[in-house]
Amino acid sequence: MSHGGGGKASSQLIEQIFFKYFANEMLCTADDQASFDIPAGRMSISTDSHVISPLIFPGGDIGSLSVHGTLNDVSMSGAKPLYMSAGFILEEGLKLSLLEKIVKSMGQASVDAGVPIITGDTKVVEKGHGDGIFINTTAIGIIPEGLDIGGDKAQIGDKIIISGSIGDHGTAIMSSRENLEFDTTIKSDSAALHHLIADMVQVVPDIHCLRDPTRGGLATTLNEFSRQSNVGIDIIEQKIPVKTSVKSACELLGLDPMYIANEGKLICLVPANKVDELLKLMQSHKLGKDSKIIGEVVAEHKKMVTMQTQLGGRRIVDYLTGDQLPRIC
Amino acid sequence: MSHGGGGKASSQLIEQIFFKYFANEMLCTADDQASFDIPAGRMSISTDSHVISPLIFPGGDIGSLSVHGTLNDVSMSGAKPLYMSAGFILEEGLKLSLLEKIVKSMGQASVDAGVPIITGDTKVVEKGHGDGIFINTTAIGIIPEGLDIGGDKAQIGDKIIISGSIGDHGTAIMSSRENLEFDTTIKSDSAALHHLIADMVQVVPDIHCLRDPTRGGLATTLNEFSRQSNVGIDIIEQKIPVKTSVKSACELLGLDPMYIANEGKLICLVPANKVDELLKLMQSHKLGKDSKIIGEVVAEHKKMVTMQTQLGGRRIVDYLTGDQLPRIC
Repeated sequence: MSHGGGGKASSQLIEQIFFKYFANEMLCTADDQASFDIPAGRMSISTDSHVISPLIFPGGDIGSLSVHGTLNDVSMSGAKPLYMSAGFILEEGLKLSLLEKIVKSMGQASVDAGVPIITGDTKVVEKGHGDGIFINTTAIGIIPEGLDIGGDKAQIGDKIIISGSIGDHGTAIMSSRENLEFDTTIKSDSAALHHLIADMVQVVPDIHCLRDPTRGGLATTLNEFSRQSNVGIDIIEQKIPVKTSVKSACELLGLDPMYIANEGKLICLVPANKVDELLKLMQSHKLGKDSKIIGEVVAEHKKMVTMQTQLGGRRIVDYLTGDQLPRIC
Repeated sequence: MSHGGGGKASSQLIEQIFFKYFANEMLCTADDQASFDIPAGRMSISTDSHVISPLIFPGGDIGSLSVHGTLNDVSMSGAKPLYMSAGFILEEGLKLSLLEKIVKSMGQASVDAGVPIITGDTKVVEKGHGDGIFINTTAIGIIPEGLDIGGDKAQIGDKIIISGSIGDHGTAIMSSRENLEFDTTIKSDSAALHHLIADMVQVVPDIHCLRDPTRGGLATTLNEFSRQSNVGIDIIEQKIPVKTSVKSACELLGLDPMYIANEGKLICLVPANKVDELLKLMQSHKLGKDSKIIGEVVAEHKKMVTMQTQLGGRRIVDYLTGDQLPRIC
């Protein structure tokens, strides 16, 4: 508990763990805030609290996830992320070695992404009033001029691209919780997409919608777009990439990959005359190599998503109802 | 749990509670990030996770505190706060009426401060893995040109001002936890100080240090300044304002007001030739009317704080060690 009290133990924790792995000049001033110069322009901000269980999972941990998740949210406006903040809620009794492992991974993810964590906060709660570690991250970024991306910007005729296979993150977490073993370990796709997005908006600045299908999965994100833009959306089941291992695990667990969280994928709605150019660019990128066109925006059935099934029928793809996968991010 | 799953119940919660009380155009776009125009300049960012117990206390609640606390941190750089984000971690079983009460109070604090909450996030954890509600807030602001405020900027000869009585917040929380009754209820001093600060930096732009003595109290903040700036600090016990009710409660609880958290006070280090002008201005402000000069920065005993006691002696005022008051903010 003393690590959260704001006294000597707090200072030690901050200096010996957080400063060590997040090391950058701005953080280490030891003020309660950080400051930096910015150019005039349009700025984007996003925040996410991470409560994932288990804390360490195949393909990542709560530390790397808390960097990727928030960077992705902020960059879905087309923004280039600049800086992040981090707020920790630690449960009394959390092993310092586990905390260090997570903070190290978080620091590495921040360095890899080129986005420093410049200010932070640590609180400690009594045993039984937390769950190991919760991490909030907030990121800010600058939106390049000429972009106007938003969930309400979909136009009739837009083509829909997904940047790769769906369901990896959620299925990895659930398999790891249930102690399921498959021939191949299913890994989370947790990754920071801002470099891919920077390339995308440079080539096709008139992207209409961009979002990462996290909680609620692909189905929920498409439903959000159709509502926000007051349009219909048609997708083709056969075109949606799902790994065989993910498909098998979902069958076993009684889950539908359409509703499973992803942490390294994006959905993009783009004018039809730009889609080939954009798809080619995305496929040339490591994090977009399995990109596919999966459907289009239509004038019919406004605020509704429909899917041509593999059997040739057509069904409504509704919002996720209930908590299919709690504490997935 | 379904309120945190990212599906229909999540949307309902967001629309019916968060949008209702935080209502502003930017938040209600329903994108995962918010964007806004900014001028070129120097920006400040600060983040704080709030885990206070009890959730509602004399003088405030976790909602208003999470606005005040973070606005204060960001404005201690001299910045004018512009926008905030809010991340909620709710424990399964939290009464919606209690959540609504807190969110309403948070919305009111944001409106009163003139700083809108423009983006947010909600997670739900299972019963026994949280404690009702934790709130992270992050704020950004713009620092007016010509300011250079920081914990490492103290100069020999600087005078030290405190903006009012110390110990109110922490003592209010502890009294409320222990169910203590006094003749007068001790209220938290929780308040947003950015309007006071805006006036201060306009009149005296060369303020050297500015900080709110929250966790660890006045003693800890002064120790931080003395270390960061490599100077000595001398204060005079008699000059430090402490309310009689707070003094009595501290005696009863075995606490030292010097180490008790404040949530609506600031400590300011300023060149001696500017101190009278600044003090007068602060005393004319509602939130600074009890401002006092309590000491000065000296060349002796570097990285150490000493106090002339009421009995005429002099003692070292050390950092807080241990967790005198857990979950105070």
